[in-house]
Amino acid sequence: MEEILNLLVLTPEEQRRFQDAAPGLSQRFAPGGRPLPGQPELTAEDYARAAVILGNPPAALLGEGCALRWLHTRSAGVDTYTVPGVLPAGAMLSCSTGAYGHSVSEHLLAMLLALMKHLPEYRDQQNQGQWRDLGQARTLEGSQVLVVGAGDLGGSFARLCTALGADTMGIRRDTAQPVTGISALYPMEALDRLLPAADVVCLTLPQSPQTVGLFDRERLLRMKPDAILLNGGRGSVLDCQALAEVLAEGHLWGAGLDVTDPEPLPPEHPLWRQPRALITPHAAGGDHLPDTARAIARIALLALKCYVSGRPLPNRVL
Amino acid sequence: MEEILNLLVLTPEEQRRFQDAAPGLSQRFAPGGRPLPGQPELTAEDYARAAVILGNPPAALLGEGCALRWLHTRSAGVDTYTVPGVLPAGAMLSCSTGAYGHSVSEHLLAMLLALMKHLPEYRDQQNQGQWRDLGQARTLEGSQVLVVGAGDLGGSFARLCTALGADTMGIRRDTAQPVTGISALYPMEALDRLLPAADVVCLTLPQSPQTVGLFDRERLLRMKPDAILLNGGRGSVLDCQALAEVLAEGHLWGAGLDVTDPEPLPPEHPLWRQPRALITPHAAGGDHLPDTARAIARIALLALKCYVSGRPLPNRVL
Repeated sequence: MEEILNLLVLTPEEQRRFQDAAPGLSQRFAPGGRPLPGQPELTAEDYARAAVILGNPPAALLGEGCALRWLHTRSAGVDTYTVPGVLPAGAMLSCSTGAYGHSVSEHLLAMLLALMKHLPEYRDQQNQGQWRDLGQARTLEGSQVLVVGAGDLGGSFARLCTALGADTMGIRRDTAQPVTGISALYPMEALDRLLPAADVVCLTLPQSPQTVGLFDRERLLRMKPDAILLNGGRGSVLDCQALAEVLAEGHLWGAGLDVTDPEPLPPEHPLWRQPRALITPHAAGGDHLPDTARAIARIALLALKCYVSGRPLPNRVL
Repeated sequence: MEEILNLLVLTPEEQRRFQDAAPGLSQRFAPGGRPLPGQPELTAEDYARAAVILGNPPAALLGEGCALRWLHTRSAGVDTYTVPGVLPAGAMLSCSTGAYGHSVSEHLLAMLLALMKHLPEYRDQQNQGQWRDLGQARTLEGSQVLVVGAGDLGGSFARLCTALGADTMGIRRDTAQPVTGISALYPMEALDRLLPAADVVCLTLPQSPQTVGLFDRERLLRMKPDAILLNGGRGSVLDCQALAEVLAEGHLWGAGLDVTDPEPLPPEHPLWRQPRALITPHAAGGDHLPDTARAIARIALLALKCYVSGRPLPNRVL
């Protein structure tokens, strides 16, 4: 009998629904890889034997020899599992795109507004007991926002910006399909032309050979001198060393990063010390909002029902 | 001939419109109290002689003996000028209510989201080169926001919160007049009943005998243990010593203050050192956004036209 290893964090009611969805299959629940009370720890053998894994198993415990036929991740990014040799040949891969839009986009908006109002620098002054006006602030109203990677995260961020009075442009592979909250869509080839027009540039790109290192020194310098840069997708899209340099040279109003390259950012990295940078430790998405776990459960349950009934998997990557 | 002392910061075009609006009167322009290029410094006599002052003159230079018939402030708050003896008997007073809503409310929203996402504490970690997850965040979506003082600032803040998915309640003297962006209005008597129901409490009250000290220790303890408090109106409405104490005791998720009591907050005040407090130096409004100065000019120009033609003054306080 096929075995399902369910690593998702579920309420008792959700767990029951997962069991009901795959009545003919054995399903072991181990939220976040930790056994339920009274059950033994997961072994390497448990991972190797599972035909289906729901969640994010350690990549080192998969590989050609394992029984995996389908992996559905709780994450939206799947780059850990597309590395050759991690999944056995023929295994299917799907992800939880759609679960993180709300959490990540609201975090990015918080970073953007904080930078616009000098909140990081006011916090530094607060720690010195210093009451000092830092002058002109910025407003999102009437700002031109460019979303690079107008998928689930980018579209969600654009909708928040639109609600606060900004105008939005998006870059997307498939420009034929409209994205709610984005006024105009462009292909990646338009990036260098659009960069000098944006007050805010928000990176919400997945990691791929096309995106790694996309925002290098040259592209950063194409941005308006007082533009604000955000990265909420994958750290490798942006050269953090180059960003620290252009900030030190006085370029850009500020930069808000929830993802960096590398992660964690090492203590000696110059970006930590740039007062106009604001860095959070990949904390925008994940399980930081309770409703994200509920959304992940909904998406995975739908995928499991599709798998069991032989229908096409939603959010399929491989 | 009546003299107008115009202390507003104006574009050349706006200055021309002010001149056109009062053709029979002598009007001297001194933006922010500083003389235009080539003109002499303002003297105490200049202030004493003016029948009309547009802007915020030093209160010490007014008083019973001065010629003032009408003061129109660039500020929304007028408590400096309602102190007995500052304005001569019979002088009219009007203000720039309506000019600051956008600037102050966006700043308050920035503080609220920053607190919800732990940005102040992440900034502290950034200064230590520390990459460490601070756990669960909060979301504005579905939150219950209570606006205490649902006037121009409070209504504007409520509209931003509504746009991001929050539900809003407001407290206001005149509950019969609906406020866009606020679902339900209540009189001040309902405050103690509403406080335990709010996830976010935003103070946007003017200073008056009824509001000074309104938020004392007892009212702070009526708030939910994980509620967020904001103050964007007048510092004296909130007991900052009591707030520092309840935060130190672990009450409240956080507090964002753009106004304090006293101002500036002295370097030794315990509130500076509360990590869950975020303090900015009365920088939400004022001239921190360029569009605020334009709004002030529009409001003052309309008021001047009313004064000259003998129509009732808008935003009249005295």
